[in-house]
Amino acid sequence: MSKLTRRPPDPIPTEEDLAAVTTGFARALVRVIRANDRFGILDQRTDFSLLNAYVLTPERLRALPVIGDPDARQKNKIDMYYSGIGLAIDGETGQMGQPLVRLHSEGWGRAMVVVGRLVVLDQTVREVHRFGFPSLSKLVEKGTAQVAAAVELIRQYPEVAHLYSD
Amino acid sequence: MSKLTRRPPDPIPTEEDLAAVTTGFARALVRVIRANDRFGILDQRTDFSLLNAYVLTPERLRALPVIGDPDARQKNKIDMYYSGIGLAIDGETGQMGQPLVRLHSEGWGRAMVVVGRLVVLDQTVREVHRFGFPSLSKLVEKGTAQVAAAVELIRQYPEVAHLYSD
Repeated sequence: MSKLTRRPPDPIPTEEDLAAVTTGFARALVRVIRANDRFGILDQRTDFSLLNAYVLTPERLRALPVIGDPDARQKNKIDMYYSGIGLAIDGETGQMGQPLVRLHSEGWGRAMVVVGRLVVLDQTVREVHRFGFPSLSKLVEKGTAQVAAAVELIRQYPEVAHLYSD
Repeated sequence: MSKLTRRPPDPIPTEEDLAAVTTGFARALVRVIRANDRFGILDQRTDFSLLNAYVLTPERLRALPVIGDPDARQKNKIDMYYSGIGLAIDGETGQMGQPLVRLHSEGWGRAMVVVGRLVVLDQTVREVHRFGFPSLSKLVEKGTAQVAAAVELIRQYPEVAHLYSD
């Protein structure tokens, strides 16, 4: 989607979508998106609308190129996703997960979230310019599962998670 | 140093320099540099000469701008430094350290080396465009100390270092 193209209208949220928006991960991701909105240009948008930027319906996917150099906006979207994971981890454990995302211009990358000296999430990001989820509930399901796995690791290795993290 | 400037001649290695070149970390870093030299343009250069690229004498430092956007070559140099750390860790433990370096265009960044799910090195990189060491022995001293600290952590938390690392 070029910067000159008008944003397509958001779909009408389903019951499932509205339930997804209120989960811990979704609220964390929204907080990160709004915190990054330095000029308040998203103030009028609903949480549902903001999260919807991560939804790639089959139509949206078809409109995207198969290969391509990801733009700054796309990279920022990925950064915010993992910051959202980190913030949601803080909500559950009181320790913020630190994201470290490295995207290569070839369209792939690696994302980590770290708590203390523990890598609580380690993921290869493929198809950076097509990063997204088929639906809002899939986005929330994936993020929530990643947060749960991270929290589980922290509970398993609390000593490592607390190393040098004062 | 612009790409159009001729590389300054290497200094004459001291006894100390020659000893530093044979250490585990220095050899690992040289291996990484040569592995990244896809066109063999460094084949004629000695190991000492390659490592010398990391040495910023007061004269070289004065020639660098105080602020500035780091170029691809500089970023690559930093990547290779942390890959060298990772390879040297492999030499001591049989487990390769995976580097993840994220440099921001503002001239700073964060570097991590990870073994399994253990963060064995976590460093803020400041002044990316001035990344270097006052002498070759200082470079080797710093790298060797970082490798030793990483190996110590792996010995302390072997279970975490072996998580998901098959």
